[in-house]
Amino acid sequence: MDIRGFQDMMRSIYFHHDSRRGKTKTYAWLREEIDELGEALKENDKKALENEFADVLAWLASLANVVNIDLEIAALSKYDSKCPKCRKTPCECPLSK
Amino acid sequence: MDIRGFQDMMRSIYFHHDSRRGKTKTYAWLREEIDELGEALKENDKKALENEFADVLAWLASLANVVNIDLEIAALSKYDSKCPKCRKTPCECPLSK
Repeated sequence: MDIRGFQDMMRSIYFHHDSRRGKTKTYAWLREEIDELGEALKENDKKALENEFADVLAWLASLANVVNIDLEIAALSKYDSKCPKCRKTPCECPLSK
Repeated sequence: MDIRGFQDMMRSIYFHHDSRRGKTKTYAWLREEIDELGEALKENDKKALENEFADVLAWLASLANVVNIDLEIAALSKYDSKCPKCRKTPCECPLSK
């Protein structure tokens, strides 16, 4: 499924809730899901990891819906098959991170 | 672009860096991007928002590559056109969040 299709699916399921909750609370829930992903990373259980990655992506798409951002356009505008800094694939930037 | 294609693109650009950095530090960078997204939400500048949504998705895909999770399978296994709790579209769960 393409990124836009997933975001559209999240809109169909949740936008009535997301729009009422608003961007601040939706962002807060995204942060909670990031915390849960961090816990799952410590446990290293594949099923739990899949569940938490799914939730982070879902809440990210919900938040994008609330603030009217097209995730696919945003992602591909910055990451167009090359590192946006050095313009190379694979990236040739120093591993500073 | 489909979710898997985006994750594969991130692997082509960054996996040599991501695998050396490892899951703990890659997760730490994902958290930093989440913080930056929070700042962009306060400013409400569309270009800045697109940039930060792109970065969060990119680092989420990088982290998934490091721990060998297929983001698309994970997302669609949980969110298959219905709310995973009430099994309805739109979701009929109470707006507790």
